[in-house]
Amino acid sequence: MYIFETKIRVRYSETDKMGYAHHGNYASYIEEARTDMMRSIGISYLEMENKGIMLPVLELQTTFLKPAFYDDVITIKTIVEEYPSIRFKLLYEIYNQKNELMSTAKTTLVFVNADTMKPTRPPAFFLNKLAPYF
Amino acid sequence: MYIFETKIRVRYSETDKMGYAHHGNYASYIEEARTDMMRSIGISYLEMENKGIMLPVLELQTTFLKPAFYDDVITIKTIVEEYPSIRFKLLYEIYNQKNELMSTAKTTLVFVNADTMKPTRPPAFFLNKLAPYF
Amino acid sequence: MYIFETKIRVRYSETDKMGYAHHGNYASYIEEARTDMMRSIGISYLEMENKGIMLPVLELQTTFLKPAFYDDVITIKTIVEEYPSIRFKLLYEIYNQKNELMSTAKTTLVFVNADTMKPTRPPAFFLNKLAPYF
Amino acid sequence: MYIFETKIRVRYSETDKMGYAHHGNYASYIEEARTDMMRSIGISYLEMENKGIMLPVLELQTTFLKPAFYDDVITIKTIVEEYPSIRFKLLYEIYNQKNELMSTAKTTLVFVNADTMKPTRPPAFFLNKLAPYF
Repeated sequence: MYIFETKIRVRYSETDKMGYAHHGNYASYIEEARTDMMRSIGISYLEMENKGIMLPVLELQTTFLKPAFYDDVITIKTIVEEYPSIRFKLLYEIYNQKNELMSTAKTTLVFVNADTMKPTRPPAFFLNKLAPYF
Repeated sequence: MYIFETKIRVRYSETDKMGYAHHGNYASYIEEARTDMMRSIGISYLEMENKGIMLPVLELQTTFLKPAFYDDVITIKTIVEEYPSIRFKLLYEIYNQKNELMSTAKTTLVFVNADTMKPTRPPAFFLNKLAPYF
Repeated sequence: MYIFETKIRVRYSETDKMGYAHHGNYASYIEEARTDMMRSIGISYLEMENKGIMLPVLELQTTFLKPAFYDDVITIKTIVEEYPSIRFKLLYEIYNQKNELMSTAKTTLVFVNADTMKPTRPPAFFLNKLAPYF
Repeated sequence: MYIFETKIRVRYSETDKMGYAHHGNYASYIEEARTDMMRSIGISYLEMENKGIMLPVLELQTTFLKPAFYDDVITIKTIVEEYPSIRFKLLYEIYNQKNELMSTAKTTLVFVNADTMKPTRPPAFFLNKLAPYF
């Protein structure tokens, strides 16, 4: 199991007329948290994509329990509970500035070979970087 | 049951480096489809918010089966399967330009009184407009 | 001279905590208006890009005179005042729902050959489509 | 004169099908740089807005000289060249990861009293915080 925390400050442009960080931004927040988690163990998502392996999102579930507001620094906990196979499942917990759980999310990603556009096994370097935690 | 179809053209700014409409835009796409569905039966979400009833999203589930591309006109089918109570559940099917199912989504919204910020029953005019379909 | 009008409805996700359509969305609004103007005379920006000619923005100037609000249908007038050369200059006037001028904008675009990434003359079909107006 | 530097990492959702950070994101980038500049001298834009003074953008000019790419950490230099009056003019220089100037921008903001929605003089605490640099 591997857990990594990322902090993101809510931008003005991300708020909506309710005064909340619009829920449409959460997909980007957790995407940033996810690549930050990879970076923390030495995986560059950019380099992997340059090598021809993409990791698109197949499924996203999000609950919105409490709002975040402009200028709040939120904390996103990215949780790798399962060792990845062709599919890579992740959990997320988002905490507001008062450290209250404001959102939970799940994503299912799939490793895709950019040449064939077919699902593929995760590259060896990816598995090697995660192996110590499983 | 009530079903309404909305068409949205994918904007350049919504594409990503994979060449796809970034999955983070789907929350906005279905939000537009949802308010368009309301408009089609004579409900203005704006007016409802002005009268002090908000309808924030509590839960969003999305699957991304096929990508949409720049300039594609996608069709979003908004499906009201259940008569709303405090919670309002909706299903969505998104079709690409070739009429292939590219995405499915579910949302759970909750009626909230903007003064008290507490969940509330849907306003009478809202229920009346939907009643003929149930 | 060629002028074309595009209507865009302000999305909920585009509003900010002031209740306005956030000014950061105007670049996308006028980009949509610009490609819509092209479409109106038989030019598909998508096809042009597929043929290896891109038209990135080199300069953007915008004034924000009055705000637009959620659900407003704004009108963007795209004005082609000059026949394009390597650079393509456009003016825009954005009107709110009451038909008041809410924003003006100018863009300078540049035709770029996607293979060489160098500026290039506009393709013949592009010039031919615009010629009747000049 | 006061200059402050802010670093922002380009998000995946901010890229477009050209592979560039879409130019529509620059308004948000410089907005974040601007509020970060204020924060650096002890001004919270959020608190100012809570006290009833807003600072909307009246004019924005941007040039796009070179693109930024996904995962690039760009540096935004916010330059306060003039002591603010009712209008507050700022310059920005954006540098890419190789430290090349990729974009320049100018904004004119206006202090607005949120109650009257009229332009107003900058609050004393705002001027006091900037005074040492002029």
